[in-house]
Amino acid sequence: MESAIKTVVQQFLSSARGKENLGAKNFQKLVQSQLGNIMSDTDSSSAVKDMMRGLDDNQDGKVSFQEYLNLVGYVANAWSERKTGTQNSAAN
Amino acid sequence: MESAIKTVVQQFLSSARGKENLGAKNFQKLVQSQLGNIMSDTDSSSAVKDMMRGLDDNQDGKVSFQEYLNLVGYVANAWSERKTGTQNSAAN
Repeated sequence: MESAIKTVVQQFLSSARGKENLGAKNFQKLVQSQLGNIMSDTDSSSAVKDMMRGLDDNQDGKVSFQEYLNLVGYVANAWSERKTGTQNSAAN
Repeated sequence: MESAIKTVVQQFLSSARGKENLGAKNFQKLVQSQLGNIMSDTDSSSAVKDMMRGLDDNQDGKVSFQEYLNLVGYVANAWSERKTGTQNSAAN
């Protein structure tokens, strides 16, 4: 599992290209290239923008590492529900 | 990255053995077998118990899926700091 966690971190770091946050363009690229199979509507630019607004807790127009981890948690929850058929109470 | 997220979910599901939460014993097994290289002190039963108490937001003596995702986020943060040398402001 360690390599899975490292993959999640590395994906953010390489998408952010040395910056601390993901801008709208890099976020869209990441979602479309990395999460297109597990999430729906990633082909739609406006849906991805809505997703970004939903994640952007501090409303700065960028996705921080913490906000990105919230997305990962959201996807993990959705996947777990699909696997178990149960609804997990969301902490975020 | 999708397979990395699935790995994280699958690890919880197999460790929980069909239950909704991880008990102390299964949590300890998971941490020691899966996170022994990336975290320190996983060999110490008391350190793992302390970690579990720290994660157990609702104090029910078990680790829920949400609480487990908080651990994954914690490890991801620690790894990101190691890779970038910066401190991320923690949301959890």
